Amino acid sequence: MATTVGILGGGQLARMMAVAGASLGLRFRIVDTVPDACASQVAPLLCADYTDLDAMARFAETVDVVTFDFENVPADTAMFLATRVPVFPNPQALAVAQDRIEEKQMFARLGLATPAFAAVDSREDLEAAAQSVGLPAILKTRRLGYDGKGQFRVRTAADLDAAWAALGGVPLILESFVPFEREISVIAVRGRDGAFATWPLAQNFHQNAILSASVSPAPHADAVEPIATSYARRIAEELDYVGVFALELFERDGGLIANEMAPRVHNSGHWTIEGAVTSQFENHLRAVTGLPLGSTQPRGTSVLLNWIGELPDAAAVLREPFGHWHDYGKSPRAGRKVGHATVNGATNEVAATLTRLAAALDRPDQIAPALDALRA
Amino acid sequence: MATTVGILGGGQLARMMAVAGASLGLRFRIVDTVPDACASQVAPLLCADYTDLDAMARFAETVDVVTFDFENVPADTAMFLATRVPVFPNPQALAVAQDRIEEKQMFARLGLATPAFAAVDSREDLEAAAQSVGLPAILKTRRLGYDGKGQFRVRTAADLDAAWAALGGVPLILESFVPFEREISVIAVRGRDGAFATWPLAQNFHQNAILSASVSPAPHADAVEPIATSYARRIAEELDYVGVFALELFERDGGLIANEMAPRVHNSGHWTIEGAVTSQFENHLRAVTGLPLGSTQPRGTSVLLNWIGELPDAAAVLREPFGHWHDYGKSPRAGRKVGHATVNGATNEVAATLTRLAAALDRPDQIAPALDALRA
Repeated sequence: MATTVGILGGGQLARMMAVAGASLGLRFRIVDTVPDACASQVAPLLCADYTDLDAMARFAETVDVVTFDFENVPADTAMFLATRVPVFPNPQALAVAQDRIEEKQMFARLGLATPAFAAVDSREDLEAAAQSVGLPAILKTRRLGYDGKGQFRVRTAADLDAAWAALGGVPLILESFVPFEREISVIAVRGRDGAFATWPLAQNFHQNAILSASVSPAPHADAVEPIATSYARRIAEELDYVGVFALELFERDGGLIANEMAPRVHNSGHWTIEGAVTSQFENHLRAVTGLPLGSTQPRGTSVLLNWIGELPDAAAVLREPFGHWHDYGKSPRAGRKVGHATVNGATNEVAATLTRLAAALDRPDQIAPALDALRA
Repeated sequence: MATTVGILGGGQLARMMAVAGASLGLRFRIVDTVPDACASQVAPLLCADYTDLDAMARFAETVDVVTFDFENVPADTAMFLATRVPVFPNPQALAVAQDRIEEKQMFARLGLATPAFAAVDSREDLEAAAQSVGLPAILKTRRLGYDGKGQFRVRTAADLDAAWAALGGVPLILESFVPFEREISVIAVRGRDGAFATWPLAQNFHQNAILSASVSPAPHADAVEPIATSYARRIAEELDYVGVFALELFERDGGLIANEMAPRVHNSGHWTIEGAVTSQFENHLRAVTGLPLGSTQPRGTSVLLNWIGELPDAAAVLREPFGHWHDYGKSPRAGRKVGHATVNGATNEVAATLTRLAAALDRPDQIAPALDALRA
């Protein structure tokens, strides 16, 4: 009988999973809080609140395994579902990744380099943390942050009041500011049988704290790749993780500092659809359904360009021989990830394509950093 | 607004189209005569008879453009839909491809080499055709044939009675038997703007008259590729064709003889999903929705293996680093195409993988011919 995969969350990650899973013969059921979540265009959707355990129980009856398209699934829901059906990644792994303190404590326990950090639960804690961590630093909510949301930069002690006014009242973490040279991410996958693999590293670029471009394989990363892979493997084994996750890293002085993990397929891995033998979406599904993992070898060089808010002209990308278009089927909204493009080919072909696209799309600020990295 | 593509027929071709179209932001509506057609797992399905024009009118109201996953759509239905919404390929092109006589007459008119052929509508016609065409020959129904169905081999005049008994009563065609060296197919695409492209040729192998394996790019085909491309271009322009079609060819003495065309994406082009920059499914959708065509360049060597009747062990393919699995989500049935695998990589990697798969799947008869072709 066909295996049915349940996905909590019906955004573009669920959508790309369902598309990748069709060739494996998998069927899907999606849960989302809105009926027109974009994954509903490719798989049946149950509209329900994730805390509605009656709905979750009905959902569990229709699926063989459950996974997630976002990390902020309520822990109680994940645990509830896990009593009824296999849930991957497991709820404990999800819980660790949901809390920046638990996550950083794990990183430190596993010997990963991290920024200095301290828990902040009061205005007094913040004062003490600024002393112990040092300034400049970044105050963050421990939970529910993404794309730079729930963060406040503390440059000097004079910023502490404003930082507390902005974020105080929920559990916080103060992290020392790392003057890194570049941001790198590693996408890793671990199977039910413990098989482990990583894709080539991505070098990431941001605009307004949202990923704007990724280059993979990250140029000149041979020296740091084994560090990233070792970090990811330690995390995967510590958490008995099953599925894909991303680890975001800062590169500095030839070393890597662990910033945060995302317990799911990740935006900086979207290039794997065209640029790797097996995509992160397919391998996540292979992992959670107990199939052998596929090869993570790259096919040429890939540059991902994120479309935030609204889509640019599709034809400009589609008429490029090395351009691939991804429209998530969402309506435009400021700050929303509505699609991406991947340029994939030999490095010189990718660079020439990006040069043309920067002009055709009038997006020099988004594309120039990736192009510079490619040519470095 | 998102473009919605309507597809008549909900089999694996519609399924793979819908999967390929998601990244283009396309939505789909499928019509099939059975409610659980396998494309219904990835797109909404209207269950209706194709001759039910009330249902077709309702269907037309929900879509922006109509295409097909099989060639035997009733001509009246295609023409009816075309009065309401753009239909690609156009109904006239479909009509020509549905009738072996009209098709072969077009081939001849365009200067394509064909087997000798003659229309047969009576026992007397058959006698005359055997004289004019020569024996051995193949008697075929003019319409509705596929996978060797509706065909009878006439070796000598002594077979004519049996051939007539088997097929007589519907319009027939007698074609001279071509003692070809190998079967080749070319997959071509033409855009709404007249842009035209072909993928590298495939060399095809059959078991029980059903495609069992394809190798692409076809080995040692440099000399015949321009002929195939020229044939396909002439057909595309003659029919003002929009979308993907396949032309099946016999190679003999360094030349190509046109056997038949399929006015749709084609089984011998499934390798393009992994093995070309743009798949036949994506380019068909780009064509019918008026988007620029994508590159048809190959990525390495690909061998397609068809799964007929039932699926073999998926894990044997999935654990191969160059193996890709396609399960169409159908229940097993003798003679039914239920899935395929593509092995894609450098030629030596593909050959080594096929050698292992022939043993692991215990399918030497299916795999050996493709392997021999690769190594020739």
